[in-house]
Amino acid sequence: MHTILKSNSKEVIIGIDRPFVIIGEKINPTGMKKLGQALVDGNMDYVKELAKRQVDWGADVLDVNVGHTEIDEVEMMPIVVEAVKSAIDVPLCIDSNDPKILEAGLNVAIGKPLVNSVNGEEKQLNTVLPIVKARGAAVIGLTIDNDGIPATAEGRLAAAGKIIDRATKMGIPIEDIIIDPLVMTVGHNSQAGLVTIKAIELIRKEYGVNMSLGASNVSFGLPDRHSVNSAFLTLAANAGVTCSITDPIKLGSSLRATDLLLGKDMNSIRYLKYFRATGKLREAEAAAKKA
Amino acid sequence: MHTILKSNSKEVIIGIDRPFVIIGEKINPTGMKKLGQALVDGNMDYVKELAKRQVDWGADVLDVNVGHTEIDEVEMMPIVVEAVKSAIDVPLCIDSNDPKILEAGLNVAIGKPLVNSVNGEEKQLNTVLPIVKARGAAVIGLTIDNDGIPATAEGRLAAAGKIIDRATKMGIPIEDIIIDPLVMTVGHNSQAGLVTIKAIELIRKEYGVNMSLGASNVSFGLPDRHSVNSAFLTLAANAGVTCSITDPIKLGSSLRATDLLLGKDMNSIRYLKYFRATGKLREAEAAAKKA
Repeated sequence: MHTILKSNSKEVIIGIDRPFVIIGEKINPTGMKKLGQALVDGNMDYVKELAKRQVDWGADVLDVNVGHTEIDEVEMMPIVVEAVKSAIDVPLCIDSNDPKILEAGLNVAIGKPLVNSVNGEEKQLNTVLPIVKARGAAVIGLTIDNDGIPATAEGRLAAAGKIIDRATKMGIPIEDIIIDPLVMTVGHNSQAGLVTIKAIELIRKEYGVNMSLGASNVSFGLPDRHSVNSAFLTLAANAGVTCSITDPIKLGSSLRATDLLLGKDMNSIRYLKYFRATGKLREAEAAAKKA
Repeated sequence: MHTILKSNSKEVIIGIDRPFVIIGEKINPTGMKKLGQALVDGNMDYVKELAKRQVDWGADVLDVNVGHTEIDEVEMMPIVVEAVKSAIDVPLCIDSNDPKILEAGLNVAIGKPLVNSVNGEEKQLNTVLPIVKARGAAVIGLTIDNDGIPATAEGRLAAAGKIIDRATKMGIPIEDIIIDPLVMTVGHNSQAGLVTIKAIELIRKEYGVNMSLGASNVSFGLPDRHSVNSAFLTLAANAGVTCSITDPIKLGSSLRATDLLLGKDMNSIRYLKYFRATGKLREAEAAAKKA
């Protein structure tokens, strides 16, 4: 099953038979003080720089989130989307849990964007899915039901099923639904990683849909989070996750290596290309820092 | 199934329900010029330092290999084993494909050592297994048959079966046989990783034995080998590999993270302990380098 996203001139195909798709996470002011300030100041140069840098480092799609206490997000979202569109040519992922903000972003996003996200709560299903359908977008569905995140893999499968059922009944093609099986921090619960891996396997077997995962939750509260995040994305990709909203700069090499090991990179062409491109970027960024 | 190795006072248990066991690979002069020279000079201080450093960095077992063109290995092996024994208290893995060298090491190794390795060739089976049996050691069996390394997972399963059959008929308990399913470089063959992962799954299902893997082959000829090696060990551990002859300094954090994600580290105790211990080591080694 292929989820096809489009920008002005580019098409990104997400699928189990394709290399892992990286959705750059950096245009999100949560915990990013500098970006928050830039948005408050209306400084779109910094936004464009973040967009360009992520694509240079291998992001296939860019997530755009403008959540910030001092910002009117309905006003800000289209401004940021326009800025990002002017800087790069990759599909966008419009990120909010507020339907009005999503709509504001989708109205100006070009091609076929992704919506992040809907979940299995009635209110969300009723408000977000019609917008996705009207825009002809794809959507990420979080496995959350009315009682929160199910503790078991079977519970997450059921939550995924509810979203898929409602979305397809509304006329959204199943290939445009990407399920996020979610992961809790493994620091507090040593079964948290395994529950998610099992949920991925169940959802893949039952529905065959594409899946996305934000890996940083898994390492919350732990030191050396990179080791945990990269090992987890490798396990998740192996189980059936096909894309992730993540940091292309930190996790790109591990994801390209995982593609290679999973037989998705003939003659290691992508791996070698990634290494060459990022080697030059690493040098250029170090030189710029020094100067 | 548990493979139990012993040193003077310590026991190491290898098993699918246990944390991944790291067999430190650094006492091996292949490609290590400084160690080669130390052995030629009879400088055991450097050997002891390498032994201690690996155990400090989390090696559970140490591999001892003295292969070098200018060295009489039958003479050298017991000298190095004695030196390592005097420096640290962990089980040893005596590493050679020559039965005489293995015997020389096993005669002085204390406790219950591991032998690396036997393979499925008649000559090897006939000469190495009796030594393993006589010493009451455990043994690593490489999935190589008379025609070399089988290209398919099924071929490697058959090679594993031949070794297990011969060893158990000779009275070696099955829990003392660790199979190495081998991996070829993924740079030349994009299916190489998948073949090994499938072999691991088949061997685990058929025999339930412990498995070991030397991960560095997989990345031969590629840049940024660390990304490939660590992702591959994560996939291998997930499929059923329970130990590896590897570099504890480079791969320890990724392997401790993998244990955590696979539910083998309750309350992340080992992960946190590893991080604290190696953080101090990193500082101390950096300070020593500066001074």
